[in-house]
Amino acid sequence: MLAEIKGINEECGVFGIWGHEKAAELTYYGLHSMQHRGQEGAGIVVSKDKELTGYKQLGLVNDVFKQVKFDDLNGKIALGHVRYATQGGKGLENVQPLLFQSLTSGMALAHNGNLMNATALREELEKEGSIFQTTSDTEVLAHLMKRSGEVTEATISEALNRVKGAYAYLILEDDTLYAALDPAGIRPLSIGRIGEAYVVASETCAFDQIGATFEREVLPGELIKINQDGLTSFRFAPRGKRQMCAMEYVYLSRPDSDLNYVNVHASRKRMGKELAKEAPVDADLVIGVPDSSISAAIGYAEESKLPYEMGIIKNRYVGRTFIQPSQELRELGVKMKLSPVRGIVEGKRVIMIDDSIVRGTTSRRIVIMLKDAGAKEVHVRIASPAITDPCYYGIDMSTKEELIGANNSIEEIGEIIGADSIAYLSEEGLENAIVKDKTINQGVCMACMTGLYPVAPADEKEMDISNC
Amino acid sequence: MLAEIKGINEECGVFGIWGHEKAAELTYYGLHSMQHRGQEGAGIVVSKDKELTGYKQLGLVNDVFKQVKFDDLNGKIALGHVRYATQGGKGLENVQPLLFQSLTSGMALAHNGNLMNATALREELEKEGSIFQTTSDTEVLAHLMKRSGEVTEATISEALNRVKGAYAYLILEDDTLYAALDPAGIRPLSIGRIGEAYVVASETCAFDQIGATFEREVLPGELIKINQDGLTSFRFAPRGKRQMCAMEYVYLSRPDSDLNYVNVHASRKRMGKELAKEAPVDADLVIGVPDSSISAAIGYAEESKLPYEMGIIKNRYVGRTFIQPSQELRELGVKMKLSPVRGIVEGKRVIMIDDSIVRGTTSRRIVIMLKDAGAKEVHVRIASPAITDPCYYGIDMSTKEELIGANNSIEEIGEIIGADSIAYLSEEGLENAIVKDKTINQGVCMACMTGLYPVAPADEKEMDISNC
Amino acid sequence: MLAEIKGINEECGVFGIWGHEKAAELTYYGLHSMQHRGQEGAGIVVSKDKELTGYKQLGLVNDVFKQVKFDDLNGKIALGHVRYATQGGKGLENVQPLLFQSLTSGMALAHNGNLMNATALREELEKEGSIFQTTSDTEVLAHLMKRSGEVTEATISEALNRVKGAYAYLILEDDTLYAALDPAGIRPLSIGRIGEAYVVASETCAFDQIGATFEREVLPGELIKINQDGLTSFRFAPRGKRQMCAMEYVYLSRPDSDLNYVNVHASRKRMGKELAKEAPVDADLVIGVPDSSISAAIGYAEESKLPYEMGIIKNRYVGRTFIQPSQELRELGVKMKLSPVRGIVEGKRVIMIDDSIVRGTTSRRIVIMLKDAGAKEVHVRIASPAITDPCYYGIDMSTKEELIGANNSIEEIGEIIGADSIAYLSEEGLENAIVKDKTINQGVCMACMTGLYPVAPADEKEMDISNC
Amino acid sequence: MLAEIKGINEECGVFGIWGHEKAAELTYYGLHSMQHRGQEGAGIVVSKDKELTGYKQLGLVNDVFKQVKFDDLNGKIALGHVRYATQGGKGLENVQPLLFQSLTSGMALAHNGNLMNATALREELEKEGSIFQTTSDTEVLAHLMKRSGEVTEATISEALNRVKGAYAYLILEDDTLYAALDPAGIRPLSIGRIGEAYVVASETCAFDQIGATFEREVLPGELIKINQDGLTSFRFAPRGKRQMCAMEYVYLSRPDSDLNYVNVHASRKRMGKELAKEAPVDADLVIGVPDSSISAAIGYAEESKLPYEMGIIKNRYVGRTFIQPSQELRELGVKMKLSPVRGIVEGKRVIMIDDSIVRGTTSRRIVIMLKDAGAKEVHVRIASPAITDPCYYGIDMSTKEELIGANNSIEEIGEIIGADSIAYLSEEGLENAIVKDKTINQGVCMACMTGLYPVAPADEKEMDISNC
Repeated sequence: MLAEIKGINEECGVFGIWGHEKAAELTYYGLHSMQHRGQEGAGIVVSKDKELTGYKQLGLVNDVFKQVKFDDLNGKIALGHVRYATQGGKGLENVQPLLFQSLTSGMALAHNGNLMNATALREELEKEGSIFQTTSDTEVLAHLMKRSGEVTEATISEALNRVKGAYAYLILEDDTLYAALDPAGIRPLSIGRIGEAYVVASETCAFDQIGATFEREVLPGELIKINQDGLTSFRFAPRGKRQMCAMEYVYLSRPDSDLNYVNVHASRKRMGKELAKEAPVDADLVIGVPDSSISAAIGYAEESKLPYEMGIIKNRYVGRTFIQPSQELRELGVKMKLSPVRGIVEGKRVIMIDDSIVRGTTSRRIVIMLKDAGAKEVHVRIASPAITDPCYYGIDMSTKEELIGANNSIEEIGEIIGADSIAYLSEEGLENAIVKDKTINQGVCMACMTGLYPVAPADEKEMDISNC
Repeated sequence: MLAEIKGINEECGVFGIWGHEKAAELTYYGLHSMQHRGQEGAGIVVSKDKELTGYKQLGLVNDVFKQVKFDDLNGKIALGHVRYATQGGKGLENVQPLLFQSLTSGMALAHNGNLMNATALREELEKEGSIFQTTSDTEVLAHLMKRSGEVTEATISEALNRVKGAYAYLILEDDTLYAALDPAGIRPLSIGRIGEAYVVASETCAFDQIGATFEREVLPGELIKINQDGLTSFRFAPRGKRQMCAMEYVYLSRPDSDLNYVNVHASRKRMGKELAKEAPVDADLVIGVPDSSISAAIGYAEESKLPYEMGIIKNRYVGRTFIQPSQELRELGVKMKLSPVRGIVEGKRVIMIDDSIVRGTTSRRIVIMLKDAGAKEVHVRIASPAITDPCYYGIDMSTKEELIGANNSIEEIGEIIGADSIAYLSEEGLENAIVKDKTINQGVCMACMTGLYPVAPADEKEMDISNC
Repeated sequence: MLAEIKGINEECGVFGIWGHEKAAELTYYGLHSMQHRGQEGAGIVVSKDKELTGYKQLGLVNDVFKQVKFDDLNGKIALGHVRYATQGGKGLENVQPLLFQSLTSGMALAHNGNLMNATALREELEKEGSIFQTTSDTEVLAHLMKRSGEVTEATISEALNRVKGAYAYLILEDDTLYAALDPAGIRPLSIGRIGEAYVVASETCAFDQIGATFEREVLPGELIKINQDGLTSFRFAPRGKRQMCAMEYVYLSRPDSDLNYVNVHASRKRMGKELAKEAPVDADLVIGVPDSSISAAIGYAEESKLPYEMGIIKNRYVGRTFIQPSQELRELGVKMKLSPVRGIVEGKRVIMIDDSIVRGTTSRRIVIMLKDAGAKEVHVRIASPAITDPCYYGIDMSTKEELIGANNSIEEIGEIIGADSIAYLSEEGLENAIVKDKTINQGVCMACMTGLYPVAPADEKEMDISNC
Repeated sequence: MLAEIKGINEECGVFGIWGHEKAAELTYYGLHSMQHRGQEGAGIVVSKDKELTGYKQLGLVNDVFKQVKFDDLNGKIALGHVRYATQGGKGLENVQPLLFQSLTSGMALAHNGNLMNATALREELEKEGSIFQTTSDTEVLAHLMKRSGEVTEATISEALNRVKGAYAYLILEDDTLYAALDPAGIRPLSIGRIGEAYVVASETCAFDQIGATFEREVLPGELIKINQDGLTSFRFAPRGKRQMCAMEYVYLSRPDSDLNYVNVHASRKRMGKELAKEAPVDADLVIGVPDSSISAAIGYAEESKLPYEMGIIKNRYVGRTFIQPSQELRELGVKMKLSPVRGIVEGKRVIMIDDSIVRGTTSRRIVIMLKDAGAKEVHVRIASPAITDPCYYGIDMSTKEELIGANNSIEEIGEIIGADSIAYLSEEGLENAIVKDKTINQGVCMACMTGLYPVAPADEKEMDISNC
């Protein structure tokens, strides 16, 4: 779904709760609010009397759990996951949480991110006799933790020190919930409270959804342990400068989430304002590509004193069962998900705000659509710098060959997509829009726009993009 | 779904196409774009070699047609319908188009509106031996047309002259498509072209969806006939002043549709601007209740020079299979469809724009939600006048007893919903926002706000609100 | 399903119950036991406080009602139907009971049989302004009854006197249940009791299924009325000699049903015994084609003192979702529903009992299958006379052109299907096997074997085979 | 389903094919024919270019594969499994084939049987760091094989020598298919050919289903390897006397299968004949409890010269979606799966043949049902000896406490179930009915009737009944 529009795909959202009577149900609602982070599969594991049971399935959260009785998933501790599957790993076996049963204990894992050295580690483990049932890099961590003995903060720390990449991990062992964030803090992971219970989630919108309150961020290199003694913090790696993924702000997260203490909608609006300052244009109105570019478009309109209008509309009822129009019908003019609003754009000079451009095909389609609907001029303004490099930290972008920003000058891009003018936000502009307070927000990972990787790949194998 | 949020429900959308190879498929996409007009059921009837066949089912358009092969619905003429079912008429038999098979011909009917004298007519027909398979008032028209003999423009006109109310009818007889609009033009109905083919639809968004171009409105009291001789216009009633339903602009239609030559989003933005002029307030920001109030909120913000912000977010994945949170969970704070954005509203004086208030329960819930999320003040501004009277023309509002606007002063309403201040748009403000050109737009039906009915009910029986 | 094997299809089963708390549920189980009579659709209508509501759908009884809450179908009176749809009438609108709602009363109809003059009657009704929503001949009777005024025993009798053919009708009007059987009693219809409640059903297996006891047969030309005054009998036509359809015994009914006081299994066993007397053959063992020929095969074995063996097995799990093997796979040897048992037939001289032959294609396939499995000889014995003529009374057989028995001598048939020898049961043999007591059983309709029609078609139009 | 009637449940069927273009489709049909061996889940793994991919799901074969495109499962080698799940192991993760992916190869396992020392082995493996994703004993073998290095005939043999119990294993490693049978040959496993391809299956009915021909049995203690060099036989254990499970003949297998060269229907018929000799009774007719007792009933009738009749009928349409009658309705007389045929049994002295009695509750229900239907006397004859002991080899019987045969004398059993007389077949009778040729059939495992276990449990833990 997202792939069609953008070519960028978030890979997974995690949710954990410790100590609530309605643990599984709250996990359902929490996952539901993070549905945008992964639409291929979902699962919940609960722990009751140290016994772990779970249910997972391919599909949207609603569909996965529509016939599940939450009474069958009782227990006060739960772990949940929504998954976006990259190619090669679409099977149900890869849907998380992964659940492992031993005669003496149960363990479940949920992961958002990407391990760069997963293949090397797996080779080593397989040589020693480990057998794998998934192609997920998450299973590697499970083996590493078990190999080093019982699962404790020590063995988890040891295992985490062997993996490299970007990750937010939730681990449920018997009745203890662990949460860990990579040393550069690239992926988001926040802690909240609901009554006496603890909640951990990829995005704070999950807290708002269930009525929980935000407590604090998990810190880079921190391992959190939650059990009957409350929450304890361990450090498995020196605390590095936090470099949260910029694309989480630009495109991936929900506008109502706060990531590392910064509201996503507000940061997007600032991106739009910065863009209006950096790249003004004489035009009649400002429109945004729904949904992710609306905030930036409003910001651009406010700053430029131009009216913000609803020039493109998104069909809310396009879902799994929508019959995609055939090529023939599309050529006849049948629209997919987005439609232009002729009554708004006809005869007008339009500034079209988009959050980013990946391959350029969608942007081109939208520009043509607007011109077909009578727009006199279409000025494209992108609320982030050009994407020029691949991501090794869990975002499924296109390969470098396909990235329009990696292979063309800005002028060429404008020509390719048919814009009357085009401009991108600068790197400084993006960073300023995100970072409110240097002591807290420190920095952002903009590797896909700058090629500067917080965690550099050591060799070709580590550049191989695997899945969450 | 809509009912939960608002208590107002559009009743049905119609779509017809004559002379296109892909008639059924285009009807599918056309209905899809009008899904918001009716979510209880959908159907398509096609005519091939004068033989009519169809498929209909309860559910959303996507679900209804997900396993239908359009090759089984071939024919160049098609009729479609999306239905909102009021109580008492939820059965599949009431889903439209209604299809009647005689030994010599086939006839199908699709209807948006409400016949006020349906019960009286039905009594008469039943006495004469007519038997009915539905509880829909649409079946009454079928009997009337057949009773007067063969179905022609004459018999249709005769039948239409016996019914009273608001209606947009599409009738497919063998290979002729008829379209008729009530003498006051209360319901919307537009004509478009796609290549050589004709299209008729409740909203123009259906034309944009399939790449058709708008041609003109069907006029009040006009009967359109489309067959191999092209389009012919008949008049079955004197052309009255057009009084299109104001609620279509305020709430019901899609923002990208043009109704009677006026774009809906633009009219909503004007409502917001008028409201800002009429009822300004000193505050920090403006927010709208998604989705229908966003345009008015942007208009208000533009006029008042206050920032427009995304202070409430709507969960896009709430659908049929969503498990509604139990009362217990809602009390714990689990949200349904709308969530406040704490990062935006916390500590702020908020102007909350809503398009209308029916019973007030939803407004009250949203105000509380915003205050819980930290809003310092919540000033409610409604982009239309108070709803005080029932609708007899096909909009399913609550009864007079339940209408908060019928039973309370504005101040009382503000208190009930917990707003720090409240104001409604004036009747003149609304009319000005809709009517661009008096020669074209003439007037609007605001009966539910003024009690002035363009087609007055003759007795109690005609006030009985039936379904489309 | 049946069609594949045989080419004969029963058309519909009816079930009614008056005066039981669990009316809808018992109807469900009753219909379930008559599933073999119609697998295309099913429906139940209940009456409560004279208000009729119902549910029907395409599919098997189980699937139709799997998500229906019987609490939503409460009422002490219920009417049910299982339907086999012939070509041209597969739509949901044709699934029964047909339900008609007038302002003053509700009426539902369920029908098993065929009206020969339905087209002529419909022409007349349509001329008078009646409009039809189905292509079912059942709707004709509804119009006839309503035309003659209120629905009473008088108007029903009058309507029945206008229709011609074979029929078992159940009619539910407000809170009265009527049952009517055609003057020749061609179709089966029995009355039972469960506690104080009355039950009427096409087959007595429905009584056994729900724990009801058989009371008596509905008589030819009889109209039964059941309401708060109990059961009253009327006669709408002179009582003719009962001529129950022979194919009900031979093939269509369940072996545990008693039709007109004769058990079906027992009659089939007698057919087998008669056949053994008429057409003995020197062989090693006797096998039957499952399921309907098993009883006759056992009878043949008993009479001939040859062992009865399970030489052909039927796969019990072949259902709606079974993926039919492609032509390519069938040629490779993949079996459909029936498989030969090599361990039984290899090297043996086999007598294969079948109940009837329609087109001969299935018989031929089975003979080849047995020979491929090593049978040395295959002697085909058919437990009924050759089918030579079409049925106008509601059994969907092939047309005369396709009937192998209408176009070939017995020897030719044997050659076509590859049998080493072949013989049919004589007409007398069949009649003797069915008729136990002349005063009760009187006669059987063997029109499809003899061309002697109890109700003769008047013209070509009446020979047109319509559906139940 | 079966559980309701009997309380005995087969645990799983396996199917493998090597070297056929349509490998996955033929596996589907093969599994379909063995559906009776396991109805809880099914799966297929295919190998193409040494890459293994698969699909599995809970449910019947038809339902599991109804939306699978076999084109997505292409490859000339396939492995399939149908599963019956005992309590505690109902999750999808336990559905087989289990699939393991390493960086260098893929391996899949399918298993029918039970490992008695699975828990002990698992404890050992977990101590060494193995992690398990299922609770199935099959996963233990996978770890054992992988631990000993690469998967070859040597490592498989080594692993098989560590497990104890009854098993038929199919192992697919890259492009090699292995088949192994336990040293006592308790579970069935046969080899067939279809064209050039090899097939291995639990029952020969799978060969007939797909048009394959039986080649030979896998021998006790034999390991078969099939790859591009053809079929090679290895011996991993000395060849013991084959002691095939008697219950496979009595109840579990399909009548058309040949197990160890003996046809199941024929053996059952001999059981009936032996029983007639051992326990004759003066009566009017013989009936069998469908489906598994029909063959024995026919044998009893033949031997006793009494008529065989269809006195109990089984509803063929009872399936997953059947709504089970409530206790209240059952007490009213609503039948479940089996109905008595009043027309047959009324006033008669009936010999009722059943294949076995487990808890006695079903037998009791049937006897009552027959008496309610008017049977004058019901003489129960069981075509196997009383079940007195649990099975450790993969048949899910009740515990010893629940076995009526373990806790009551034959007379007591007769009284409990309400029979007028009762008799069981003797052990010798059963053995004689099965064993045709001592050199081939050698012996049968009758441990559940005699307590004499071919592979004796060493301790309490090994008596713990786990699942296949």
